[in-house]
Amino acid sequence: MSNPFFKNNGPFKFNYILKELNLNVDESNKDLNITDIKDLQNSKFEEITFFHSKKYKKAANTTKASFCITTKSLQNELPKSCIPIIVDNVLISTSLITAKFYPNSIDDDFDNTVNDINKTQFNNNVKYGKNVLIGQNVSIGSNCLIGHNTIIEKNVSIGDNCIIGSNTIIRNCLIKNHVRVLDNCVIGKHGFGFFPTQNKNLRYPHIGIVIIENYCEIGCGSTIDRGSMSNTIIGKNTYLDNQIHIAHNVRIGENSIIAGQVGIAGSSTIGNNVKIGGQVGISGHLKIGNNVEIAGGSGVIKDIPDNTKVMGYPAKNIREFLRENR
Amino acid sequence: MSNPFFKNNGPFKFNYILKELNLNVDESNKDLNITDIKDLQNSKFEEITFFHSKKYKKAANTTKASFCITTKSLQNELPKSCIPIIVDNVLISTSLITAKFYPNSIDDDFDNTVNDINKTQFNNNVKYGKNVLIGQNVSIGSNCLIGHNTIIEKNVSIGDNCIIGSNTIIRNCLIKNHVRVLDNCVIGKHGFGFFPTQNKNLRYPHIGIVIIENYCEIGCGSTIDRGSMSNTIIGKNTYLDNQIHIAHNVRIGENSIIAGQVGIAGSSTIGNNVKIGGQVGISGHLKIGNNVEIAGGSGVIKDIPDNTKVMGYPAKNIREFLRENR
Amino acid sequence: MSNPFFKNNGPFKFNYILKELNLNVDESNKDLNITDIKDLQNSKFEEITFFHSKKYKKAANTTKASFCITTKSLQNELPKSCIPIIVDNVLISTSLITAKFYPNSIDDDFDNTVNDINKTQFNNNVKYGKNVLIGQNVSIGSNCLIGHNTIIEKNVSIGDNCIIGSNTIIRNCLIKNHVRVLDNCVIGKHGFGFFPTQNKNLRYPHIGIVIIENYCEIGCGSTIDRGSMSNTIIGKNTYLDNQIHIAHNVRIGENSIIAGQVGIAGSSTIGNNVKIGGQVGISGHLKIGNNVEIAGGSGVIKDIPDNTKVMGYPAKNIREFLRENR
Repeated sequence: MSNPFFKNNGPFKFNYILKELNLNVDESNKDLNITDIKDLQNSKFEEITFFHSKKYKKAANTTKASFCITTKSLQNELPKSCIPIIVDNVLISTSLITAKFYPNSIDDDFDNTVNDINKTQFNNNVKYGKNVLIGQNVSIGSNCLIGHNTIIEKNVSIGDNCIIGSNTIIRNCLIKNHVRVLDNCVIGKHGFGFFPTQNKNLRYPHIGIVIIENYCEIGCGSTIDRGSMSNTIIGKNTYLDNQIHIAHNVRIGENSIIAGQVGIAGSSTIGNNVKIGGQVGISGHLKIGNNVEIAGGSGVIKDIPDNTKVMGYPAKNIREFLRENR
Repeated sequence: MSNPFFKNNGPFKFNYILKELNLNVDESNKDLNITDIKDLQNSKFEEITFFHSKKYKKAANTTKASFCITTKSLQNELPKSCIPIIVDNVLISTSLITAKFYPNSIDDDFDNTVNDINKTQFNNNVKYGKNVLIGQNVSIGSNCLIGHNTIIEKNVSIGDNCIIGSNTIIRNCLIKNHVRVLDNCVIGKHGFGFFPTQNKNLRYPHIGIVIIENYCEIGCGSTIDRGSMSNTIIGKNTYLDNQIHIAHNVRIGENSIIAGQVGIAGSSTIGNNVKIGGQVGISGHLKIGNNVEIAGGSGVIKDIPDNTKVMGYPAKNIREFLRENR
Repeated sequence: MSNPFFKNNGPFKFNYILKELNLNVDESNKDLNITDIKDLQNSKFEEITFFHSKKYKKAANTTKASFCITTKSLQNELPKSCIPIIVDNVLISTSLITAKFYPNSIDDDFDNTVNDINKTQFNNNVKYGKNVLIGQNVSIGSNCLIGHNTIIEKNVSIGDNCIIGSNTIIRNCLIKNHVRVLDNCVIGKHGFGFFPTQNKNLRYPHIGIVIIENYCEIGCGSTIDRGSMSNTIIGKNTYLDNQIHIAHNVRIGENSIIAGQVGIAGSSTIGNNVKIGGQVGISGHLKIGNNVEIAGGSGVIKDIPDNTKVMGYPAKNIREFLRENR
């Protein structure tokens, strides 16, 4: 899927990309077009990707990208069809090139394109409260409600029969049908991703979006950050209670139930029919299987297989935990 | 107390209720009136209640309700004065009948009856900020302040000398005197209660309210959900710090102090003079006694007797915990 | 530094202070001026301070204050240059006198001096959203952005190149340059500090402010309380993720990174280059050194020396914790 919301400033010539990275020009390929930047799995012919850790070797072996920002030691993992671009710091170089393609994805300044909903096309087919603001590139389906003081910033698509609460802010977000987002939420801002640097951290672009599938409910005061290179996804009929934080690139499956004040760190994946108790914390880059139950207050620091009940910090088999903690 | 806020669409004939539950008509009782639906303890003559678990046997034995939705195996616990209505799933049937009595208690759509406070009767006797909205069936006592962008939705009663902050949303709530609710709170929305169902969960009605007694303070960014069948109550002179979540049906006693980011799950009861440290989590349906102290970060998963100090996850006697964790 | 925001109603005669504390007049010193009230370290000639616990003996020995509210048993720790004022309860007496100097620092009523930014001097040199409110005694540097529905209450100074999000409330706060405060934050309200009293707690004044240094970022839904007698400080280039709570008098160093839902209790000090994982809780009055790493979910209940990695609840050396919790 091409990026639905952020404007792609490409294509760029290979030559131009090399120059931006302070690399020598490659005379034989210099006029090749580069049309987009994506992760290893999703990139295609004429697109550029990045590969910075052996952890992603498998995805690198089969990438369809024509170009890849990587290191000397990793380059041999790439297929013949992919031209490696050798740099010192893959992530910083990737960030720089991403910003060339999507300059609008770095900052999250307030959307100054918004208008009072009274003055927009939604005046007639949406039921709305006082002081509702709507940005550019917004679509809203039939039979929707939007509460008071809510701001639908640019790049939001809302399906049919959705209910958005009051004092909520949404941007860069694809909301399907029959979804409820309650009051005081912030959905779609960039994630907590940057390169730590003394005196002035370097933010990297977040070109992902938030996708909320049919029949979801998002509780009051929750925050859902959009993805950096991929998307943050809440699966069908998954319910989130109040004050939950979902970090960038997290993917949650269908029919899951997440209680209040849970936090899920970046890039973790949660399966279907998962039950997560209140105040649970889940570390980043983990895989939680299907039908998992995590007792309230647990801290999860490693993958959890399907059909498992866990508890504790670090979370372990719940029977084992309760036996040890009588 | 009859329900102060949700309009009761009853009485209904016994016959009608049976039909709604797809049950056969009971010819001898079919014209009896049913006036209201309440829990086992609070229901009275001509009212209907529900009984779904042996845990509530004691309350069932002495209920004053004239009708009770229950199961075949539980029906014998009810007194002679109470006619049992036998169903397969008590909670789903109760939800269905509650919705007949109180159809407005299921959804929490934004209140479209609100008006700018300038245009209401409170124009003169309340000090208020910019953009304050007031719904129907709201009363506000003397000497109150309401901050900017705050929304007092329908069904709210505020006493004398109260201070409500900015960006706060209140609905279905009884606030006594000298209460402070700080900024960015959401008080009185329905709880996180529903019947999990594949593809589309089933919400049940929340006909309870939130009651905040004299001299309480509620910190910024806190959420207090209203009760489902009973009320959520914050006792006199109890102080809540920032970012606290109080789930539906929770009852907190007097003179208690609750530090930041605490979460209390549904239907738990907290005593008087209780001190709860930051980030404590308390599971649902627990009873925390009077004069209890819970150290910050603890996770409480069982009842705590009066005059006890606990710490840890799961929380235990604090001296024991500290001895084991030197 | 004299208090930048709260109006000092002093000086008061020594005599007046004694009377307010229901003490006998000291004839020989009765006409001495008392110009301000500060903590032991920061108070100077002609100023009054307070000393209530042996823990602060070292600071008491060298205070430059001319007067000190203290107890009989502690008074001998004060230098000759400092006249002791003997009371039963130091903190309550200090609270009472602080309120004499700074009567506006007790309550945090909404700021009724605010105006729509359209009608202020900032109309031209700030880029702002809809419905932005600005209070008295506010300064804003060049090239700043302020999002929709945001309220900059009285006593706020914002430097150059700052970005303030939407639905955010700021008061009593000094924001330096290149700072970002994201959406739905509340910054600068009083801390959770009061004297617990049956039936009606007694709030004490908070005359401190919040200082946010250059290049900081504060995530969505975060709360930062101002100090009581000293200030709450976020050091240069320190980044806070979403839903973080920073209590009064906390000081955080430079280049630190704090993940989502962390809570830091009152008066704790965090060093430079500190990394704090998600949902960490840090108790009050602790000292966390430089280059410390605290794993997500940890609960810190004692000081942590420089260059240490900790994990667990209570937090301990991370290798020890992981060895014990395989």
